[in-house]
Amino acid sequence: MRAARYYGPGDVRVEEVPEPETRKGQVKIKLVCGSDLHAFHAPFPESITPTLTNPHYVTGETLPVTLGHEFSGIITEVGEGVDTGRLSKGQNVVVEPLISCRENGCGPCSADHRNVCPHASFLGLAGWGGGLAEYITVDERLVFPLPLNTPLDVGAMIEPLAVAWHAINRSAFKEGANCLVIGSGPIGLMTLKALQARGAKWIGVSEPSDQRRGMAVEQQASAVFDPRTQDVVAEVFKATGGQGADVVFDCAGVQPSLDLAAKAVRPRGNITIVAIWTKPAILNMNDITFKEFTMTGIIGYDHVHAELLEAVAAGKFTGLEKFITKKIKLEDVVEEGIKVLMNDKEQIKILVHP
Amino acid sequence: MRAARYYGPGDVRVEEVPEPETRKGQVKIKLVCGSDLHAFHAPFPESITPTLTNPHYVTGETLPVTLGHEFSGIITEVGEGVDTGRLSKGQNVVVEPLISCRENGCGPCSADHRNVCPHASFLGLAGWGGGLAEYITVDERLVFPLPLNTPLDVGAMIEPLAVAWHAINRSAFKEGANCLVIGSGPIGLMTLKALQARGAKWIGVSEPSDQRRGMAVEQQASAVFDPRTQDVVAEVFKATGGQGADVVFDCAGVQPSLDLAAKAVRPRGNITIVAIWTKPAILNMNDITFKEFTMTGIIGYDHVHAELLEAVAAGKFTGLEKFITKKIKLEDVVEEGIKVLMNDKEQIKILVHP
Repeated sequence: MRAARYYGPGDVRVEEVPEPETRKGQVKIKLVCGSDLHAFHAPFPESITPTLTNPHYVTGETLPVTLGHEFSGIITEVGEGVDTGRLSKGQNVVVEPLISCRENGCGPCSADHRNVCPHASFLGLAGWGGGLAEYITVDERLVFPLPLNTPLDVGAMIEPLAVAWHAINRSAFKEGANCLVIGSGPIGLMTLKALQARGAKWIGVSEPSDQRRGMAVEQQASAVFDPRTQDVVAEVFKATGGQGADVVFDCAGVQPSLDLAAKAVRPRGNITIVAIWTKPAILNMNDITFKEFTMTGIIGYDHVHAELLEAVAAGKFTGLEKFITKKIKLEDVVEEGIKVLMNDKEQIKILVHP
Repeated sequence: MRAARYYGPGDVRVEEVPEPETRKGQVKIKLVCGSDLHAFHAPFPESITPTLTNPHYVTGETLPVTLGHEFSGIITEVGEGVDTGRLSKGQNVVVEPLISCRENGCGPCSADHRNVCPHASFLGLAGWGGGLAEYITVDERLVFPLPLNTPLDVGAMIEPLAVAWHAINRSAFKEGANCLVIGSGPIGLMTLKALQARGAKWIGVSEPSDQRRGMAVEQQASAVFDPRTQDVVAEVFKATGGQGADVVFDCAGVQPSLDLAAKAVRPRGNITIVAIWTKPAILNMNDITFKEFTMTGIIGYDHVHAELLEAVAAGKFTGLEKFITKKIKLEDVVEEGIKVLMNDKEQIKILVHP
């Protein structure tokens, strides 16, 4: 079968690989929609992505690995021992592509907090196949039926939506909260959608890019600010009766976003870092001291797919299809996918149809 | 009456001031023990301490102000309207010296989170008298009876103990937790004592000063480490079955303490900043991302005195008197107090007897 294989930074090749075999407890999925080309550029440590010589701790694979951890597809084969009441041939499904060491001595794995296992990674980044191929085989516990009212292309966005859903779980968010989302790239927009679905009272979005601000407006943020021309802190205080934001989500991962977060958050509020940063941050410790705000970071998700898919089935998300700004074939993944995504900020999600 | 008055950095004078009058709802306290000379050097912002020309927002006073926010004494006068069932003449008392704006529009004051009011400060730093004088008059709501089994000199340490108690409240501490305390100066030692009183399972202390490490040993920390010669991270992991500390308390306020905290804390653990920092910190954001730890800071305390004094009455603290390393007269507060505390790390609490 054909697969997009990652050989290292800047080197992705579409090539023939053997079709995977469905082992006990697994299902085989014919992949319909894949995305997450952005992951290709994320500054992941070696615990996430192996190298050409060092195999990944969990999968044992070295580069190349098949790319793609945001995907949806149709079950074509059900392995021995799989709960056929839950998963069956012909069913539309999505995958929680989280893998961890699952060793007895691992505290996070023992506590079932798999995403903070020191060896945690993702299908499509660490090996064991990925979404940018014709087929993948996956352990049944990671496979979730897609609600009947949800098309497969929206299904490919459940994974990044799960990141946002998990970020809200780990934040101090409560229904009715006033929230500020800093950055409205793909993950900022997903956070906006998840906050709407969970009943935020007010959601401000700060974003310097005109195109991306436009997307936040289209997705009905309560207010959208341009930090280049507006005093975002003053605007947040004005919108929240002088109190500041209950929760600030950093979806930008740059120093000005942390500076803004520390100023815009209310006393005893919460800052949740959703972005992956490429540089260390400078934190004015007196901000955290005198405001007593809390701060946390998140990676991926952990046991949120079931709850999230219930919310999707209940119609709590609208407009997700607008995030799909382009559709391409697997053969075009480099020229029409990765390279376009790098240069064109109007692109949110480019879907690949294997 | 005599009082130690703070005129500005390095300028404290013991001089005659008028004795305060007991207003409605207040009690007058004859001060017996005062401490907190260290506060003189803390890098407080203008919201805490006024200047010679800018009055404090809450007290309306400019410098000089009477020093001292850690103190105990005996009620000598009970003002009109005071609940005499709770407070009466001759009673030994301590004070929660927290003041805030108490304005309707103030979110923290409306939520009764007084210590994070933007104008929050302390008696003894902002005006309205202080503990290093012969008398002080205080609103009854800030005055708490000292348990009968507790001497007045230990009473002068209830205030810094309240900081530690509050830090534990704001942290993710639960009974049975494994904790690391970084720094065993006065506030680190108070944190150690409060963690013992609240049932921590294991309390490691990291401290480079030999004398201060000795105090942590004397106060029965589970393990005491010298970060200059020991791999504290490895020791913490060894002591916690390879998991890391559930909660790390930074009571040092320097870059190496944050670096150590981020490495020693377990995934999804908590770092609580108790120290007041003098410089911004550098935070490796990938640590907070991949470990999903939470971080918070604290200032002072808020409604913890009643609970803390119950624990003191119940005998949950022992050895507090060992923190009193010197006793001096009010006249000697500069030469024998402040200057000694600056240069002698063996001093923990110097008590002043007005």
